[in-house]
Amino acid sequence: MIYFDNAATTRPSARALEAAGAYLSECYFNPSALYGGGVAVSREIAAARKFLLAQVADPFRYELIFTSCGSEADNQALFGCARRGNLVTTAGEHAAVYESAQALKARGIEVRYAPLHADGSVDGAALLSLVDEKTSLVSVIHVNNETGAVNDIAALAAQVKKKNPRAVFHSDGVQAYGKIPVRLSDDVDLYSVSAHKIGGLKGTGALIRRKKLALPPLIYGGGQEGGMRSGTENVFGIMVFYHAARETFAAAEQAGTRLREVRERLWDALDHGIFTRISPQNGTPYILTVSAAGLRGEVLQRMLADGGLMAGTGSACSSRHRFSRVLSACGYPERVLDGVLRLSFSPQTTREEADAAAEILNRTATDLRERMN
Amino acid sequence: MIYFDNAATTRPSARALEAAGAYLSECYFNPSALYGGGVAVSREIAAARKFLLAQVADPFRYELIFTSCGSEADNQALFGCARRGNLVTTAGEHAAVYESAQALKARGIEVRYAPLHADGSVDGAALLSLVDEKTSLVSVIHVNNETGAVNDIAALAAQVKKKNPRAVFHSDGVQAYGKIPVRLSDDVDLYSVSAHKIGGLKGTGALIRRKKLALPPLIYGGGQEGGMRSGTENVFGIMVFYHAARETFAAAEQAGTRLREVRERLWDALDHGIFTRISPQNGTPYILTVSAAGLRGEVLQRMLADGGLMAGTGSACSSRHRFSRVLSACGYPERVLDGVLRLSFSPQTTREEADAAAEILNRTATDLRERMN
Repeated sequence: MIYFDNAATTRPSARALEAAGAYLSECYFNPSALYGGGVAVSREIAAARKFLLAQVADPFRYELIFTSCGSEADNQALFGCARRGNLVTTAGEHAAVYESAQALKARGIEVRYAPLHADGSVDGAALLSLVDEKTSLVSVIHVNNETGAVNDIAALAAQVKKKNPRAVFHSDGVQAYGKIPVRLSDDVDLYSVSAHKIGGLKGTGALIRRKKLALPPLIYGGGQEGGMRSGTENVFGIMVFYHAARETFAAAEQAGTRLREVRERLWDALDHGIFTRISPQNGTPYILTVSAAGLRGEVLQRMLADGGLMAGTGSACSSRHRFSRVLSACGYPERVLDGVLRLSFSPQTTREEADAAAEILNRTATDLRERMN
Repeated sequence: MIYFDNAATTRPSARALEAAGAYLSECYFNPSALYGGGVAVSREIAAARKFLLAQVADPFRYELIFTSCGSEADNQALFGCARRGNLVTTAGEHAAVYESAQALKARGIEVRYAPLHADGSVDGAALLSLVDEKTSLVSVIHVNNETGAVNDIAALAAQVKKKNPRAVFHSDGVQAYGKIPVRLSDDVDLYSVSAHKIGGLKGTGALIRRKKLALPPLIYGGGQEGGMRSGTENVFGIMVFYHAARETFAAAEQAGTRLREVRERLWDALDHGIFTRISPQNGTPYILTVSAAGLRGEVLQRMLADGGLMAGTGSACSSRHRFSRVLSACGYPERVLDGVLRLSFSPQTTREEADAAAEILNRTATDLRERMN
């Protein structure tokens, strides 16, 4: 079985699980406890926090707040910082940002959506034109989770701040963290990340915050995470995140280069009479989104699984709707939207898997086409 | 080492971890994925949800929403249901309810706190007198996490509903679930529970909701948990919760009876010239809170750990403040508040541990007293 749905979730790293194993057994203490065991766990969390932060930001100017997932981090950013005036975001956001924006709209915040280019990246000039003196928050996804397009958040944030220095700039970095080079510029105030997209576990994420930014909690209580996020820390999840990130970041550059080649090799091997490419060349190496126009993605997906290939159809998180909201905003016609498949990779993905996957994809799509005629 | 801080967190059940192990390896799929592996995981989560709910509520009238912790469940209840008028709660709430209430107050909601009896249970008549036609939510902790006192939430909820049928009734059941008999009456609308207090993992909790109650999400996004809580499900945490709960509920009645005896045996063996009892006789069998009046609880706690006993001082979650807010509200003088120790048990706690703990407690407190003179 070939697993090409790594953008939905990755297989947890066996090495990271082993390295964190003690936190399921002897090191089970509550990090808030004042006796030795609790203090030791709390110290290990601090080390994990430091490492996870330092990979993408200056630890002197940023801090990292552990959350239960990327969605929680996005929600904290939006509900915490879009409290008045207008919120400027893009038509290409993950549901965690989009639905939060919709909820804010219901509470009286004006929400402005910047349009997308065909590859899923935001139209930067249009985004900027939406920013004014009443903008409290701008939220732009770093790597589009449906197409893999990369937004230049450093440049966008700089331009936003130039127009309105008081506007907070947030980016959902869930598909970027550990995958493409990230170094937060001072103009980026908030950045959401997730563990289970890089070999960690579902149930762990983080929000990276510029220290000078005032941010209210989304979850109040015992004052964990410096008062920014209450609730007993998910110690095992955090420690697996740490060890998975160590592995991931150590090999990220090499993996990126290799996967770019794997992605192109896969694309080259696909039948271009059937498949249209949606992902841009300069997008993340981890995602190749294509469409078998005229075929139904979900039907194809099930047939592919029977043939030995697990692939996604757009975002697993928005599987309730027939057409992807994001890909619709890219301007594709319904025939194309129907046939979308997202093939997404991990550092373990091999050329051989790409070759085998291409063969399964070509065969299955041809088969389905013939059945439909 | 004797571990008597189980109310802060329990050691995860080795059997539950083993039973859920597959969700860390081969069954790692995103439950939203439409191929076989995803569907299978989604089905297992449904089975876990059904079991966890059925232990305390009628599954036809209630549903269970997985959250990342008890604190998140409390926050969702408070921010979701106390949207206008006043919120009535008690002076004995966990920080997750108390701090949420404080945040609501800052947003213009009137918050009314009912006073406590000396054992930490709420004064029911006083609580009722605070409820009026403008009350949108009443929140009463089921088992007080600092004293172990049990509030009769069924009776309180019935009285609240009689006075104002539109008021929502929530209870934080974190220290009750799996420990004392719980059967939610129709008057209880929302009930918060946590996995890591019964052999599950930190990072998993749930909010039980009466189906007819309208409840907005706290975390918006991909629409998981029936739209009530977005974010990719913490599959491993949920499955460990399920297996730990199966173990816990199967032995709960027997454990309760036995621990009541263990608790009294421990109390009887303590030097009553040093230790004052705070926990009531009819409280949860899992908690014995005492005070070595005139001594500093934190100092004692560290010395106890050196002597082989890990104990809590009030709630680990509120360790930032010198005096416990809840125990202050019970009316104890500062001398007593200073010397508080919470001894909390698990179904694995033995008589022998209680005997050894009593000896360590008596010896250590005597020792500290002498040093202070």
